[in-house]
Amino acid sequence: MSNSSETVLPLVDEAVAPCCPPLTERPLDAEEAERAARMFKALGDPVRLRLFSLVASHEGGEACVCDISDVGVSQPTVSHHLKKLKDAGLLTSERRGTWVYYRVAPSVLAAMGKLLTARA
Amino acid sequence: MSNSSETVLPLVDEAVAPCCPPLTERPLDAEEAERAARMFKALGDPVRLRLFSLVASHEGGEACVCDISDVGVSQPTVSHHLKKLKDAGLLTSERRGTWVYYRVAPSVLAAMGKLLTARA
Repeated sequence: MSNSSETVLPLVDEAVAPCCPPLTERPLDAEEAERAARMFKALGDPVRLRLFSLVASHEGGEACVCDISDVGVSQPTVSHHLKKLKDAGLLTSERRGTWVYYRVAPSVLAAMGKLLTARA
Repeated sequence: MSNSSETVLPLVDEAVAPCCPPLTERPLDAEEAERAARMFKALGDPVRLRLFSLVASHEGGEACVCDISDVGVSQPTVSHHLKKLKDAGLLTSERRGTWVYYRVAPSVLAAMGKLLTARA
């Protein structure tokens, strides 16, 4: 699944940082589109997007399932969606004691923001 | 195929401009997430994302199906995806003669870029 372009860097950076030029600069090639679409797709679900914003805006820049209660879905569903966001390279996670804490790598937002930069 | 939803107002501004704060600012509410997820979902397909970048980066900021030949799918499929991007509020369209021309409203990129702004 992700064994070719291995780097020492975390998956997040590998998946995102060198991804793609701004969408207004030139057409993406197939590989770039594949890569970037994975991120967009992960955010293309309302519940996942709420969870992502919840983690991204949470105190200290990280949150665990234990911090999340008001998105209208069960805790297993929250965990499932957080895992999907992680698989897409949008979140990183770290287990501490009972809970897994999720965090958005700033490089992800920077890379996606760059993709969406309008032509000057 | 494309005769109904012609409006004077660009759908785009209505759908996007007042959408949402940066994802890092506070958790999105259900309605904001619904709205923004629709845009992300539309870009969550590699072919659609390539088409979007093709339109966004095309000379003059617009393109028609007649300009698109190298994304590996048939012209009807291209038209289908362009319509989906339009329905999601990411593209506007205008018929001129035989062809429908698609254009990305700068406000869309600005709004999505803002969503993805990292916390300072």
